[in-house]
Amino acid sequence: MREVAILGIGQTPVDEHWEKSLRHLAGEAVIAALADAHTGAERLDALYVGNMLSGPLNRQENLGSLIADWVGARGAEAAKIEAACGSGAAAFRAGLMAVASGAMETVAVVGVEKMTETGGPSTTASLATAADADWEAAQGLSFVAINALVMQRYLHEYRWSHNDFAPFSINAHANAVHNPNARLREAITAKDYTRARMVADPINLLDASPIGDGAAAVILCPADRARGNGRPAITVAASASATDSIAVHDRDDPLWLAAAHKSAKACYAQAGVGPNDIDVFELHDAFSIMAALSLEACGFAERGQGVRLGLEGEIGPKGKLPIATMGGLKARGHPVGATGVYQLVEVAQQLRGEAASTQVEGGRIGMAQNIGGSGATIITHILRRQ
Amino acid sequence: MREVAILGIGQTPVDEHWEKSLRHLAGEAVIAALADAHTGAERLDALYVGNMLSGPLNRQENLGSLIADWVGARGAEAAKIEAACGSGAAAFRAGLMAVASGAMETVAVVGVEKMTETGGPSTTASLATAADADWEAAQGLSFVAINALVMQRYLHEYRWSHNDFAPFSINAHANAVHNPNARLREAITAKDYTRARMVADPINLLDASPIGDGAAAVILCPADRARGNGRPAITVAASASATDSIAVHDRDDPLWLAAAHKSAKACYAQAGVGPNDIDVFELHDAFSIMAALSLEACGFAERGQGVRLGLEGEIGPKGKLPIATMGGLKARGHPVGATGVYQLVEVAQQLRGEAASTQVEGGRIGMAQNIGGSGATIITHILRRQ
Repeated sequence: MREVAILGIGQTPVDEHWEKSLRHLAGEAVIAALADAHTGAERLDALYVGNMLSGPLNRQENLGSLIADWVGARGAEAAKIEAACGSGAAAFRAGLMAVASGAMETVAVVGVEKMTETGGPSTTASLATAADADWEAAQGLSFVAINALVMQRYLHEYRWSHNDFAPFSINAHANAVHNPNARLREAITAKDYTRARMVADPINLLDASPIGDGAAAVILCPADRARGNGRPAITVAASASATDSIAVHDRDDPLWLAAAHKSAKACYAQAGVGPNDIDVFELHDAFSIMAALSLEACGFAERGQGVRLGLEGEIGPKGKLPIATMGGLKARGHPVGATGVYQLVEVAQQLRGEAASTQVEGGRIGMAQNIGGSGATIITHILRRQ
Repeated sequence: MREVAILGIGQTPVDEHWEKSLRHLAGEAVIAALADAHTGAERLDALYVGNMLSGPLNRQENLGSLIADWVGARGAEAAKIEAACGSGAAAFRAGLMAVASGAMETVAVVGVEKMTETGGPSTTASLATAADADWEAAQGLSFVAINALVMQRYLHEYRWSHNDFAPFSINAHANAVHNPNARLREAITAKDYTRARMVADPINLLDASPIGDGAAAVILCPADRARGNGRPAITVAASASATDSIAVHDRDDPLWLAAAHKSAKACYAQAGVGPNDIDVFELHDAFSIMAALSLEACGFAERGQGVRLGLEGEIGPKGKLPIATMGGLKARGHPVGATGVYQLVEVAQQLRGEAASTQVEGGRIGMAQNIGGSGATIITHILRRQ
């Protein structure tokens, strides 16, 4: 398989875009990525769409042909890839495979989700489709409730207090202030975190990421073509996807993200690196508990010690392991099927040195991890600046 | 890219499976395909799911991890691929790419749809998500209504009568009688066709395929591994996917399936064959008009002459171009996201010589074409018996 590069990136702000439909959002991101790549839509061999909820929320499927035509690539191959909140990175993998295999030369991947001002069922009911419909959702568990049970168990098992998770949210919000595409550009204090309204005990409003409308896109091509275009070439050094049981209660250990461990381990092997080599890590902090579990499963912290890096002040842009550098899911916002592509775009921004106030100095190797369901589908990528 | 073979096939009957959920249906098909392939679920590197409507109809997304775990492949990569009624073949393409690229050795592809006894919005409303939500569905057009407008235009433009389409439905039903997995195992007469109740003028009940619950699966592996396992090796000689505008009114010519033409042409080039070399063609006869348009776009008939092969008696198992040999969408049934995999399984049955009463004698090269939306996403495959 040949090496693949990210030739262009594009994104819309995450917000309530009441005046824009799915195709407008996706189109803006793809067209921005094409412009960034100095290429045109007529060059696209394929377009892969990461999206979770367009069927119930927007009454629109067949997003591949919808968006391909809208951006000017009528005729190109197109399909939607769904893996709940991991849809974005799953779509990226489809694009990667198409180029790496030699089957295609130029491919767009766009993650898009339109969650506000929709006419369908409630967002809470729709998000619950990421969990086991028969054994979790039908029993009355919302998606946040499942994560609350996991966090409760973590607090019990490892004897941390809820406040020990504060650094994740404080860091995410502090970074989002500087990201024009973030939804919540407001710094928060430790006191704000402690006093935030409860959502599902122990998850409060500042443990949880906000939904939103948004789209992010990348243009992929063979690595050879990305060199010498006036900016650092960003290549995909590793990519892996793994699954676990969809229902948390079916796992041997509800506090271990086996699919994160498996996909991260595969990525380290592919890229020939280890956790210590990662300069920036965009993790899936849909809830603060998931940040802790992801750090542990990926080898950045010992079991039960995922909060420690935050408490030691090492997760900021100047820390040992910068995370959520553009706000993360927590403060950039979490338009679910788009999130995985936002993460990869943000890692590319960091490695290109285009991250402005939250730039990680000298970052050469970045990792992104996207999670679908409560740990059910986990896709990890490592990008490298050449 | 290396050559890929279909090592195993499996399917459930298409029916109203009130006692079976999505995971049960998909599991049955995958486990049957694994048994047919003489391999185990622990060998699966990935599982790709073709499905369109599980979000609105079954309140379940994240089907990849759900089904991978259920069949015994917890940990393997998994994702759902959606391209409306073309989801099945789109998922097959994902599996094909994974093996052809060298990234994976053993992959399962399962198409599954559960359309009866669901709790969500109406099936008609859900199927309309295959069309343009803003410019078709929101204007009151159901999916069958869109196809009715196309058929009306065809009758006007080319001066055929409605009865000239009868052979498509008569052939499909005649073949389904012999297929234990078909939903409508009843022969029909020309008089039945003429007298059938109107659905959306000029499409009557015997022009339209029935929905249903069902799943079909294949196991893919490198071609080398499929040889010498006691039955003819079936390889994937060609695969291509193309799109058109999602809304029919956005096309220069509503009677020309540009995406069928483009994907079939690419397949002929890849396989080094032409329409005359195709021994059996499983086409997407969701409505009889689509059978005619597909034959024209793929080079089996002149423009406006798609009904002629049927009128000349050449579409039966002993004809010049056997189509719908196991009943087609019309009579085997159309569990939408599963259909594309059913078609590929049926072509494999034909090429293996396992099609019993409707066996096409000496068939070596078979084609399958799966359509998402009213011609918006079209995926064509050519299989070959080695």
